[in-house]
Amino acid sequence: MNTYIGIDLGGTNIRAAIVDERGHVHEVVKRDSKALEDAETIINNLVECIQELPNYEKALGIGLGVPGPVDVKEGCMLMATNIPALTKYPLKKVLEAKLSLPVFLDNDANVAGLAEALVGAGKGKDVVYYVTQSTGIGGALIVHGKIVSGRVGHAGEIGNLIIDLHRDHINHLNVGAIENEASGRALIRKGQSLIDPNIESAYEVFKLKDTHPQARQIIETMAFDMGTMFSYIAHIVDPDAFILGGGVTKSSDLYFETMINSYASKVHPPLANTPFIKAQLDEPGLIGAAMLPKSQGV
Amino acid sequence: MNTYIGIDLGGTNIRAAIVDERGHVHEVVKRDSKALEDAETIINNLVECIQELPNYEKALGIGLGVPGPVDVKEGCMLMATNIPALTKYPLKKVLEAKLSLPVFLDNDANVAGLAEALVGAGKGKDVVYYVTQSTGIGGALIVHGKIVSGRVGHAGEIGNLIIDLHRDHINHLNVGAIENEASGRALIRKGQSLIDPNIESAYEVFKLKDTHPQARQIIETMAFDMGTMFSYIAHIVDPDAFILGGGVTKSSDLYFETMINSYASKVHPPLANTPFIKAQLDEPGLIGAAMLPKSQGV
Repeated sequence: MNTYIGIDLGGTNIRAAIVDERGHVHEVVKRDSKALEDAETIINNLVECIQELPNYEKALGIGLGVPGPVDVKEGCMLMATNIPALTKYPLKKVLEAKLSLPVFLDNDANVAGLAEALVGAGKGKDVVYYVTQSTGIGGALIVHGKIVSGRVGHAGEIGNLIIDLHRDHINHLNVGAIENEASGRALIRKGQSLIDPNIESAYEVFKLKDTHPQARQIIETMAFDMGTMFSYIAHIVDPDAFILGGGVTKSSDLYFETMINSYASKVHPPLANTPFIKAQLDEPGLIGAAMLPKSQGV
Repeated sequence: MNTYIGIDLGGTNIRAAIVDERGHVHEVVKRDSKALEDAETIINNLVECIQELPNYEKALGIGLGVPGPVDVKEGCMLMATNIPALTKYPLKKVLEAKLSLPVFLDNDANVAGLAEALVGAGKGKDVVYYVTQSTGIGGALIVHGKIVSGRVGHAGEIGNLIIDLHRDHINHLNVGAIENEASGRALIRKGQSLIDPNIESAYEVFKLKDTHPQARQIIETMAFDMGTMFSYIAHIVDPDAFILGGGVTKSSDLYFETMINSYASKVHPPLANTPFIKAQLDEPGLIGAAMLPKSQGV
């Protein structure tokens, strides 16, 4: 069976895996990503990591998921806050020269969305919008089995979507940006402000939902806001399904119903039935990275 | 050169044309669409109209732009307010049987967007979002030369996007829906309410911009709201270009700058440079309809 190499390049670790064309993960190796070193050190480390994989040279191609927006044509990161030396570094060209295999890259939310669309919760669906609600909020648009990365790699940068112009100013994102209102970080901020300054996780806010009126209000508002955001995606793209991943969705029992009701109240009636499906893969980052070359015809 | 038949089926007229593969319109015929008659009468009228076109049988396929959302797989209209007998009528199958040519349909905004993407303002661009700002507001997403119609034909139904939750309730659309705040109809409504109850066109409001403070305010707010809407599309899709058509854009000199500034203030910096291009085609409906079979590989 054809195999591909998938790489999850993060600010802390790098993981590389052999993944077969069905999306099954075989060997995985992991090491420090040396994210704050110079480009040559990072690349040599990355190449060594790949060469540790048994029979790596038999793979048909290499895909990388990276933490930031990507110019997919040039094969470089446009911004690389966590791995500064890779900003606009010709990652694709250098790796192809060193490893003699075709190399593709895209950002981590996009590759996770690709994995879910091809072999996970969206398998068999033509147009999928993937949303990750975690520390931050991101997304990915997958059309006909390919990521739509966007002109400047920003398709899916939905954390900055304004869901209400009349909220508080928080940071560099828009006033009322969904990431400032509904991400894990936002739930912690609101919990600390309205419930207890010692709250350290979104899960603690969820645990208080049935006993603490402010916790209930925080979660209801988050669900309402997420519904607003999904109504935007529906009218703009009308995907075959929304796929929802990320740590916050582990508490889906406590807010999905309110979220979907909020969504349904804000869309044309035929859109109200768009399926909301939870992400299914354990390793969407590695699998999606490995699917990048395949999705590009390699 | 290969030719196709493009049909613009409206609530008043039907127009049919021979269009070549470069998007040049040759013969055009036009007749009453008999929109309120029964399905058989409408179809026979449509078939006769096509058969009037010289050498119609040499075309490779037929495309129809229709006024409402479409199930493109089944080839039928899902809602047909202006042509009630065609709601869920198997238009594609019936026409293919009668004319022995492959038939495709999609809604009128989508086919206009396809025309602009393939042979108009978006020529050569991979991902295009077309927006028509006319009596109402609609749009179309074109990816790799094909319309993304959506699960229930609602991709591009952007008139219902909420750009501010705190506006007045107007009609069945969302409170703060962009169509109720920035369409031609919205400009007339606001003009009648704030300037003069006898105002009958958006153009009259534009004409007063430099002399009437309320007219100025109406247009500035419309431009601000359109910028908000474009910021949604940018974060969700990041298209290679926005293409803007529709009657309101004839007054682009009076609001595009404010609109683009509003947009740029609400997006991540790399998105601020997304090109805004005015639609270029005289007959996007006929050309886009004719491009439908070609875009599907016929």
